Amino acid sequence: MPPLGLLHMRAWASLFSRLLRPPGVVCIREVHFHSQVSEAVLTSQLKPQHEKSNFIIKTPKGTRDLSPQQMVVREKILDMVIGCFKRHGAKRLDTPAFELKEMLTEKYGEDSGLIYDLKDQGGELLSLRYDLTVPFARYLAMNKVKKMKRYHVGKVWRRESPTIVQGRYREFCQCDFDIAGQFDPMIPDAECLKIMCEILSGLQLGDFLIKVNDRRILDGMLAVCGVPESKFHAICSSIDKLDKISWNDVRHEMVAKKGLAPEVADRIGDYIQCHGGVSLVEEMFQDSRLSQNKQAIEGLGDLKLLFEYLTLFGIAEKISFDLSLARGLDYYTGVIYEAVLLQTPAQAEESLNTSGQKIRTTETQVFVATPQKNFLHERLKLISELWDAGIKAELLYKNNPKLLTQLHYCEHTGIPLAVIIGEQELKEGVIKLRSVASREEVAIKRENLVAEIQKRLSES
Amino acid sequence: MPPLGLLHMRAWASLFSRLLRPPGVVCIREVHFHSQVSEAVLTSQLKPQHEKSNFIIKTPKGTRDLSPQQMVVREKILDMVIGCFKRHGAKRLDTPAFELKEMLTEKYGEDSGLIYDLKDQGGELLSLRYDLTVPFARYLAMNKVKKMKRYHVGKVWRRESPTIVQGRYREFCQCDFDIAGQFDPMIPDAECLKIMCEILSGLQLGDFLIKVNDRRILDGMLAVCGVPESKFHAICSSIDKLDKISWNDVRHEMVAKKGLAPEVADRIGDYIQCHGGVSLVEEMFQDSRLSQNKQAIEGLGDLKLLFEYLTLFGIAEKISFDLSLARGLDYYTGVIYEAVLLQTPAQAEESLNTSGQKIRTTETQVFVATPQKNFLHERLKLISELWDAGIKAELLYKNNPKLLTQLHYCEHTGIPLAVIIGEQELKEGVIKLRSVASREEVAIKRENLVAEIQKRLSES
Repeated sequence: MPPLGLLHMRAWASLFSRLLRPPGVVCIREVHFHSQVSEAVLTSQLKPQHEKSNFIIKTPKGTRDLSPQQMVVREKILDMVIGCFKRHGAKRLDTPAFELKEMLTEKYGEDSGLIYDLKDQGGELLSLRYDLTVPFARYLAMNKVKKMKRYHVGKVWRRESPTIVQGRYREFCQCDFDIAGQFDPMIPDAECLKIMCEILSGLQLGDFLIKVNDRRILDGMLAVCGVPESKFHAICSSIDKLDKISWNDVRHEMVAKKGLAPEVADRIGDYIQCHGGVSLVEEMFQDSRLSQNKQAIEGLGDLKLLFEYLTLFGIAEKISFDLSLARGLDYYTGVIYEAVLLQTPAQAEESLNTSGQKIRTTETQVFVATPQKNFLHERLKLISELWDAGIKAELLYKNNPKLLTQLHYCEHTGIPLAVIIGEQELKEGVIKLRSVASREEVAIKRENLVAEIQKRLSES
Repeated sequence: MPPLGLLHMRAWASLFSRLLRPPGVVCIREVHFHSQVSEAVLTSQLKPQHEKSNFIIKTPKGTRDLSPQQMVVREKILDMVIGCFKRHGAKRLDTPAFELKEMLTEKYGEDSGLIYDLKDQGGELLSLRYDLTVPFARYLAMNKVKKMKRYHVGKVWRRESPTIVQGRYREFCQCDFDIAGQFDPMIPDAECLKIMCEILSGLQLGDFLIKVNDRRILDGMLAVCGVPESKFHAICSSIDKLDKISWNDVRHEMVAKKGLAPEVADRIGDYIQCHGGVSLVEEMFQDSRLSQNKQAIEGLGDLKLLFEYLTLFGIAEKISFDLSLARGLDYYTGVIYEAVLLQTPAQAEESLNTSGQKIRTTETQVFVATPQKNFLHERLKLISELWDAGIKAELLYKNNPKLLTQLHYCEHTGIPLAVIIGEQELKEGVIKLRSVASREEVAIKRENLVAEIQKRLSES
């Protein structure tokens, strides 16, 4: 059961890092470039290569480019996610990539060491944002906004060690959906869980489960097990590792490294191996130790209400109350949740890849071709008409390309239609319209061409 | 005539900074927050405030948040721009926000001091990207790609001094469209200019002009005017300022600061005050001095061909051959271009603001309301049905909101439809569907509600 690191709606950020290849390192010894800009840029790049022969052209450690194929997948995912956020009435926000350094200080506990700082080049001290939550809180404070349902899609940066934390990138994209404000309890939380279900279903990654817990239940549990309050934080971060390492290893960390009595660790172990539906909530209400703790009772009360709403939304069976769910960051105080896929990422990845046809990286609808020499002017006039009619069109940037090369380009890139203009067509005032797949051609009057293309495109 | 700093398709980056407000500084003394996350985040933020009373919550100098209203404008613009890029068959690419520091070294001439470096926290030395061009060149080199038509939309960072360079932000978004590869001359360049025209027309910012020149003409002109080759670079950067300061000031800089003989400066002045259409190209071919320079003749030949293609695209009258156009960056070697608006930015901004109605920041189509107490469960069931049918819907997160509050929310946020459920409706198996604008209400059978809503939405 592969865990998906989720912070509100961030399931897909983790999905991405699985869908996409690890950072590549390619050593270039000789490069031929022809575009004006690339040539000039690389000339200066290649100069030092003669001196240092091991010069490497690569992306920074832990980062990657997204190729056109990967961008098609990403945009499909983002369209789906953003569509869902809009369906739930959220507004979109954007904030700068960096914040004042002091704005990020003391927000992330143990993880603060993973923040990228900018060099002091005079002026303010800055850091790259670590998540989209702190910038949102800063926006609310700065503009004195007390109530807001917003979504934010953007990159964040964390100096993780990719060799240690498998598959994590140092730059990745987060999709946050937050409802800030004071409301009657659990209604917004239930909507957030509904959104998670809609998105995870929409992504068609197979079966999933959303674990929920409450920080008050967690704290109450630690208290009744006999953990001193000064150690809550450290013990939570051990519990949080349970999806990565075994209970034995977590227990060892608690006892050997964090100084917990073995019997206290064992009591914790009994609780955090419990998970279930609303019936487990009821059971915990009856638990002899937990029912003595005011905080825990409050948390359990809210979870009971939450399950009531989840049932009305028809998603209760997707949700699992899980006492091991801790979530590392300091800023959680109430309900917390996290999604897990019930199949391996490899299977999920496969289903995403095989569900469609070969991925097209452009949306070009029509290719403008000619079988004859010296027809560039006619091709340019024709393609301009198509562009002006809003039709996505391409041609080869050659004065005299071969017809076969042009048709091959259409087949290779998946362009469905080709229009062909030659001496004969020009004389007769027609254009040949060719279906690339079937290779059928019909002659169409020039003045009817755009309408005919639009008709064909709307039918397909 | 306000200049738009353009690098290929970057007109809109500059447009943005005009459309949007300057960076805000708000000093918060007291903040009340209610969402779990915001509260926790701000608690730690507010702690030091008691000690340092001048603590300020703000975005870093030269950066800004984009509010929901601004995001609606930005997304409209981006949709238009990206739609155009797709119409021309471009693939989308993404690269990391930072690059190896040495990758950016020696690429930007005088502007290199504006690059943001990351702090050395161990490992590679990194810098935030300064544009999207160098990352594209790095991508091509790294993947040994020789031919690619790609677009890239993303933020770039420059340590400009906003007080000196009016209206420029330190973080802004660029939209790049590039055609890399070796092709027959001027066909891709003509398409780039066509794209600029389509985008600037599409943005409806009023009349515009695109200045074109060629680095070879520029260099040839400097040579025949008597500028020593060692000073080409410095003189180009002076010429580049002609859209910001007067010719007299530029001339003064050339003579006093850059050591040019006054008569050489005057000869340059004669040329760089020339601008016109293809007839000016012809005229320069006949120019007694310029026609002696091989480089200039090559550039003029290409411009002539370019104008031929621009005429076929129907955009020749939008293009002005302008010998003062220099473009600062080192990596240009051939044709260069830049767009200018022919009205003031204030007018352009106005036309964008008044063209539409009041800007809605959400797309919510239906609001779920009740006139009665204790109807939360029914509202939740109903809204869940709407969401599952793909309808954008909202409700208030309150157990017992007042009907007036609910209807007011619809009017305030521009939601066109409200569905109302109460005791009576529940008994009769109907829902009231209300048009928020006309306040007309009809009762509709519960089972027909989704279909009726979809019908109404498709009609509006």
